[in-house]
Amino acid sequence: MTRILISGGTVVSATGATPADVLLDREQVAALLAPGAGEAFTVDETVDASGCYVVPGGVDVHTHMQMPFGGTEASDTFETGTRAAAWGGTTTIVDFVVQRTGEVVEEALAAWHAKAEGNCAVDYGFHMILGGVDENSLAAMDRLVEHEGITSFKLFMAYPGVFYSDDGQVLRAMQKARANGATVMMHAENGIAIDVLVQQAVARGDTDPVFHGITRPEAMESEATHRAIRLAEVAGDTPLYIVHLSASRALEEIARARSEGRNVFAETCPQYLYLTLEDHLGAGGPGSFEGAKYACSTPLRSKHENHARDLWRGLRTDDLAVVSTDHCPFCFKDQKQLGRGDFSKIPNGMGGVEHRMDLVHQGVADGHLSLARWVETCSTTPARMFGMYPRKGVLAPGSDADVVVYDPAARSRISAATHHMNLDYSAFEGFELSGGVRTVFSRGTKILDRGTFTGRPGHGRYVRRGLSQYLR
Amino acid sequence: MTRILISGGTVVSATGATPADVLLDREQVAALLAPGAGEAFTVDETVDASGCYVVPGGVDVHTHMQMPFGGTEASDTFETGTRAAAWGGTTTIVDFVVQRTGEVVEEALAAWHAKAEGNCAVDYGFHMILGGVDENSLAAMDRLVEHEGITSFKLFMAYPGVFYSDDGQVLRAMQKARANGATVMMHAENGIAIDVLVQQAVARGDTDPVFHGITRPEAMESEATHRAIRLAEVAGDTPLYIVHLSASRALEEIARARSEGRNVFAETCPQYLYLTLEDHLGAGGPGSFEGAKYACSTPLRSKHENHARDLWRGLRTDDLAVVSTDHCPFCFKDQKQLGRGDFSKIPNGMGGVEHRMDLVHQGVADGHLSLARWVETCSTTPARMFGMYPRKGVLAPGSDADVVVYDPAARSRISAATHHMNLDYSAFEGFELSGGVRTVFSRGTKILDRGTFTGRPGHGRYVRRGLSQYLR
Amino acid sequence: MTRILISGGTVVSATGATPADVLLDREQVAALLAPGAGEAFTVDETVDASGCYVVPGGVDVHTHMQMPFGGTEASDTFETGTRAAAWGGTTTIVDFVVQRTGEVVEEALAAWHAKAEGNCAVDYGFHMILGGVDENSLAAMDRLVEHEGITSFKLFMAYPGVFYSDDGQVLRAMQKARANGATVMMHAENGIAIDVLVQQAVARGDTDPVFHGITRPEAMESEATHRAIRLAEVAGDTPLYIVHLSASRALEEIARARSEGRNVFAETCPQYLYLTLEDHLGAGGPGSFEGAKYACSTPLRSKHENHARDLWRGLRTDDLAVVSTDHCPFCFKDQKQLGRGDFSKIPNGMGGVEHRMDLVHQGVADGHLSLARWVETCSTTPARMFGMYPRKGVLAPGSDADVVVYDPAARSRISAATHHMNLDYSAFEGFELSGGVRTVFSRGTKILDRGTFTGRPGHGRYVRRGLSQYLR
Amino acid sequence: MTRILISGGTVVSATGATPADVLLDREQVAALLAPGAGEAFTVDETVDASGCYVVPGGVDVHTHMQMPFGGTEASDTFETGTRAAAWGGTTTIVDFVVQRTGEVVEEALAAWHAKAEGNCAVDYGFHMILGGVDENSLAAMDRLVEHEGITSFKLFMAYPGVFYSDDGQVLRAMQKARANGATVMMHAENGIAIDVLVQQAVARGDTDPVFHGITRPEAMESEATHRAIRLAEVAGDTPLYIVHLSASRALEEIARARSEGRNVFAETCPQYLYLTLEDHLGAGGPGSFEGAKYACSTPLRSKHENHARDLWRGLRTDDLAVVSTDHCPFCFKDQKQLGRGDFSKIPNGMGGVEHRMDLVHQGVADGHLSLARWVETCSTTPARMFGMYPRKGVLAPGSDADVVVYDPAARSRISAATHHMNLDYSAFEGFELSGGVRTVFSRGTKILDRGTFTGRPGHGRYVRRGLSQYLR
Repeated sequence: MTRILISGGTVVSATGATPADVLLDREQVAALLAPGAGEAFTVDETVDASGCYVVPGGVDVHTHMQMPFGGTEASDTFETGTRAAAWGGTTTIVDFVVQRTGEVVEEALAAWHAKAEGNCAVDYGFHMILGGVDENSLAAMDRLVEHEGITSFKLFMAYPGVFYSDDGQVLRAMQKARANGATVMMHAENGIAIDVLVQQAVARGDTDPVFHGITRPEAMESEATHRAIRLAEVAGDTPLYIVHLSASRALEEIARARSEGRNVFAETCPQYLYLTLEDHLGAGGPGSFEGAKYACSTPLRSKHENHARDLWRGLRTDDLAVVSTDHCPFCFKDQKQLGRGDFSKIPNGMGGVEHRMDLVHQGVADGHLSLARWVETCSTTPARMFGMYPRKGVLAPGSDADVVVYDPAARSRISAATHHMNLDYSAFEGFELSGGVRTVFSRGTKILDRGTFTGRPGHGRYVRRGLSQYLR
Repeated sequence: MTRILISGGTVVSATGATPADVLLDREQVAALLAPGAGEAFTVDETVDASGCYVVPGGVDVHTHMQMPFGGTEASDTFETGTRAAAWGGTTTIVDFVVQRTGEVVEEALAAWHAKAEGNCAVDYGFHMILGGVDENSLAAMDRLVEHEGITSFKLFMAYPGVFYSDDGQVLRAMQKARANGATVMMHAENGIAIDVLVQQAVARGDTDPVFHGITRPEAMESEATHRAIRLAEVAGDTPLYIVHLSASRALEEIARARSEGRNVFAETCPQYLYLTLEDHLGAGGPGSFEGAKYACSTPLRSKHENHARDLWRGLRTDDLAVVSTDHCPFCFKDQKQLGRGDFSKIPNGMGGVEHRMDLVHQGVADGHLSLARWVETCSTTPARMFGMYPRKGVLAPGSDADVVVYDPAARSRISAATHHMNLDYSAFEGFELSGGVRTVFSRGTKILDRGTFTGRPGHGRYVRRGLSQYLR
Repeated sequence: MTRILISGGTVVSATGATPADVLLDREQVAALLAPGAGEAFTVDETVDASGCYVVPGGVDVHTHMQMPFGGTEASDTFETGTRAAAWGGTTTIVDFVVQRTGEVVEEALAAWHAKAEGNCAVDYGFHMILGGVDENSLAAMDRLVEHEGITSFKLFMAYPGVFYSDDGQVLRAMQKARANGATVMMHAENGIAIDVLVQQAVARGDTDPVFHGITRPEAMESEATHRAIRLAEVAGDTPLYIVHLSASRALEEIARARSEGRNVFAETCPQYLYLTLEDHLGAGGPGSFEGAKYACSTPLRSKHENHARDLWRGLRTDDLAVVSTDHCPFCFKDQKQLGRGDFSKIPNGMGGVEHRMDLVHQGVADGHLSLARWVETCSTTPARMFGMYPRKGVLAPGSDADVVVYDPAARSRISAATHHMNLDYSAFEGFELSGGVRTVFSRGTKILDRGTFTGRPGHGRYVRRGLSQYLR
Repeated sequence: MTRILISGGTVVSATGATPADVLLDREQVAALLAPGAGEAFTVDETVDASGCYVVPGGVDVHTHMQMPFGGTEASDTFETGTRAAAWGGTTTIVDFVVQRTGEVVEEALAAWHAKAEGNCAVDYGFHMILGGVDENSLAAMDRLVEHEGITSFKLFMAYPGVFYSDDGQVLRAMQKARANGATVMMHAENGIAIDVLVQQAVARGDTDPVFHGITRPEAMESEATHRAIRLAEVAGDTPLYIVHLSASRALEEIARARSEGRNVFAETCPQYLYLTLEDHLGAGGPGSFEGAKYACSTPLRSKHENHARDLWRGLRTDDLAVVSTDHCPFCFKDQKQLGRGDFSKIPNGMGGVEHRMDLVHQGVADGHLSLARWVETCSTTPARMFGMYPRKGVLAPGSDADVVVYDPAARSRISAATHHMNLDYSAFEGFELSGGVRTVFSRGTKILDRGTFTGRPGHGRYVRRGLSQYLR
């Protein structure tokens, strides 16, 4: 038996901050205590958190460890990826199982369990990507909700021929989710129209990485977002969660639906808060392939339209409820090169699981967000949204002892040379950060402390999730 | 020294519920403990909360105890009113000091302190009504923020000749608040236009109580709401809090401003969630004076437009952040009679401080609101909005030990015959309630338990408040 | 040579009314004259229009004469249909050529010319339905614009497997139209999702005609409307014309796009202004097949939501620019019966070409619309929208002498027993009308006069149209 | 008796253009004729309009000839101002009679008639400014509508202590207008709040002309616009016409109200389409008084927000229905100097009556507007809006023979050195124009031809106006 007292810090929750000590007892939080009140307990270790925030471990609900994509596979395994997560103060990830047309949902799930089990440094759950909506996969949805702790299903309005569902398939899946309580997650881009633009660009010889963004215009994100909202309405108000929202006008559609009181939610990602089409996807100018590092979908948006300003505002207003990473790293040297000479072949994605907590905290330092919203968007709401509260996302008695001691006075610099993801570049190379993770506990085990990783593969356990706890 | 352990209950916070024990030590919360973990402490008393919710005491930020109005005075004193609050699970009120044109702000404050001090059963704070915005009162705003713990100032766009400020006065006060960090609270009705409608109605002989509502049309509330929002914008984004919002279209203006990311907030009150112009203000039909019981401003709204549905939705979306009562009781027998034959002379207001927690909890029982939103709208957000967090509004180590044990299985019926307000009728007479307050602690003292009031006048202390903690 | 003077009437245009005489010289308007000024001319005939409106002949830009649909064919031929049009004061129709997947556009056009030529009582033009967007049909668009006087192309977001274009096809056709100046007309319903709802309803045994409407919910019309708007934006602001708009929320999308200044236009039809889902599509109650008479797509909408009120408003605000009929009659006895026992097999459409002018004029009589808007929505704007102005749509020197003398004091009653369409029922059976057509000229020939048809098949000529003259 | 045939030109109306001849007979239009058809008439003169547009004379519904303001008087008399109008193709003005608090409305009217009668080169009507809404002036409204041909009443939400009406007065006047059919015109700026900003700026020493604009922020125009709309709604949907709209967000309020179907209309003026706060009001930089030339209210807006783009769009969408000039000239040398050292004392206004038709036609040349909209916004709609159609605003048989022959190929340059207004500077100095007035007829009399003014003071007659013909 192990008791740890984290003392002297400021506990930050989704509603505010208070000086308090946190007592961990084996794998759980045993108590939150007024300073000094912990003396009643015998403890094995006292961690001094003076000057630090003590927050619930980060919950990143959008990662793709070793995900197959376009003939290659995301470069982080569950082992390297969850270790990097730990370095960044994220103690729970929810990754995506991929079912493709014709595949059996449970077999896909088994394959993903096989990849993750015994390898993860922190706890993990699964969403299910339905790449092929049919009678079989629809029936499987019920079983996954009831028996497997999988309560969220991702559909794609993009990527025809790969993950794409047509509106009839989307509607059927939403009807099923409406009945069993699950949440539908949506990649909202009009892939059918985008593919036309992509083919035209390639045919014209516009093959640089920047055309990845130009051929995915904002209007095709806002369109699909609106369409998903209306389909969810027709299905009877199915809970809908838009992933990786990047465009101001897509945000407007979300805000409009939310003002109507609908169960519509959205996340954004750090890349959309900091990076732009011109400066990153267009890096190096005509002929350069540098921009491939920044190719992800939805794409980075034009700096001239100042989407980032709108996204920060959306985070303040809760029209954006969550910051996740869409962590899907591909190495520049071997993998991104697949798209040299044809942007449409660049593996889509970038790595970020390690820096989410820092990059959103930077928003606090920069005055974009309150401290409480940092905890809420990075931990509490994702846990509630995907049925893990109060086990995850909050420091409360009985919660899993996933705790981060965060030092707001720390300073660091992001670099591929020093990061822990299995990725040969960083999209945020050179970013200076105010604040940093000092110590991380996962279910009561100290897995990171002052620059030393003390966790191990296999410590992380699968989290069976319940239904959304964030419905209106 | 007194230690009390509230054990076996479900602690509900603004983000969710968890089984936990709460340890009170003298006036504060000493610990939140996993069930059983409290054994480490020697306690003086253990309160069994099995089957009950354990929630932070209610915070009612809009009351008018013994307030002078139209030649009479609200019928609850600070003593009777705060005792009734205790009965209803409200452990903090914020009442309104009234400064009138030409009066010295600090003298008004002293007068209100004199009324409240030594008389209150629960803690209390003050907002300041500025009935006369001029150089003197503007200068006083700084002093009140800095020295008196008064950080919110209420202005009136209604009641010309009484509390009314013109748009220039509103702008000046907002500029001052912008500079010193205070929040401007606004009674948003176009009183100049409404007075024309009122005079015309009286001149026509339309003098029944229902004309109180008819002469205050929804468009004049939404207009003033919009105007206040724009004035706050011109003042540099002064925090703005619209009181007693009742109209759907006023809510639309709030939602519009909030989607723009502005620091605009609003409260509604139970009367607008349950009562209507036709059934209540128009009760008894032509010639009846029954409706006078329901005369308040903003008025009850037409049932044909289903404002209540929109207000519940606003509470779900957080476009309505707070439920307060606008408790301002006038007895039917002696006081409301002043308006017989002329609705414009009916003392405006109704009593509700006792039933807010119950009536909003009823919304949970009816499926309008989540349990977490109940706590958030009735306790956490009001405390944050008006600078009392984490002392009030949350159960956290170091918080004031204001705790309510609430039994969701209790059943009761509202009646003037049984309520504890000094009021000879109830606007909610006959309402059946699911759930009820079982035990109430105020700063660690049990002041109500299973139907017995155990508090005393003078237990309640003045709360010096800080700036809003709810800004975006 | 023939000169006719229409004297003594009130000429009504899109901007107002003025007493004036109209001189026709052979096929054209030779002059508009102040009363009496016509004496300068020798005329062959003087028509007394005292007490009457003199207006440009009606332009119905949405008809489907003898159109093949679901194994049958619309019951009006070009002969019977255009004769009925003449009875109703419509002197120009624009009908739809149908190209299906794999068919050659010009061959389809030739087939339609063959059907119409020599048979029409009034002038006619053609839009082209592209049922199969591919390289060939896209190339044909240019040729039709340049050589054939066909400048508008209709696409379907509904009817998968029949006329349906996917969003990529829609985008390509819009890009082509953007380049050659044509207008894209859109049947905006999400047919993919609707087909799911239809199949589910049929599978459930919900086969009555009313389910035709229930399975085509308003949200699927507004969704598709929004999608079409965004695709037109991505194509570079292609002129977009939404056909047969019936739902309030689709109208909202139109209004939103128009406030943004986009070249987005819409028509509605008389059936949506007067008939409802419950009273007509649901006529006769469960088990009745009566409602089949009213099955058209988009469907009639629920009376509980009062769409008609919104559509009249849209006509006032010009968010609805045109009233057309979508005339597509199927006899109840032989044709509608195909859907007995399965609403999805009911031939979609109803007949109305004869009563458009009357039914919209009724809106003037009922206070919904101004006299000027009657002429504008029924004649001037359709002519401008589809490139026929000033030849059609206006009484101006040089315009085709298509003139209607309309008696506002006439009274009549719509009935299948007396109408002139080849249709065994009327959707407006029993409607009492204020006002009626007295005399109709088509290119200077009197084709109808006081209840006698004096025209002939073959008088009507093909109208080669130019590009839209209604762009913003 | 005089007959004039204007032949060979292209007649442009609000709906389009057509080649046609126009026959004038004494003071009226006798006929519109197909080219050549005029041979039937003996004419006294034939005017060759080949290559030119023939359009209805311009209608400028917002001028202030010799208006008293701030201790001086607008520098154009009715004689010089209407002569300048003629030079610019404007054949009707509607000027504002000014009634001040306590003054008798009919006496003010008589005074204005005295100023205008016998002096005007073109026809003129009057609106009535109600500077003092009371029982007397309200009663006068009925009389003016019924007997004096004055059907529009202007109120001010700005200029407290001068023209300002409070919201109660506004409401009363709107109620009266609702009853007698008149239109309320509104200067929509929150003058009470603006005066606070003005006083603060002056107190700070921010006295340059640019502060005239800075102290009248866009939010105070949009606020007042919204307020006026809501008051008109409460009055029962009184026709409301917002004058000199300059701010994008005020336009948004108009568009919102119009989408709701309300009788809400607005005009803008050329200065807002071409001039900006920075480049004009701020001309010369700190310490310069040059900007005084551009001081008008509402003020010029910031170029950084691109209001002009939005205003042109509003003209396309008809959310802006009219372009007027707000012609109110003050000479720089003598009059504007009153504000040197204190912007708040600069006489507000600029001269533009001469260049409206040209500057809006320039918008056609620049691709902002269609030719039809030029005629509609500058002539047809103002005539309809203020009850002068079809006498004014249209070339139709029986209309007043107010005709402009406009040469689109002409080129000119605006300059105070050459203009005809009594004003020592031009706000548009140096503007190059495409197109120009060639010949102008006023009620059949040629008053301007190829650079020679052939009219005379006293030719212009008073126009008694009817109610709005532009209601929805």
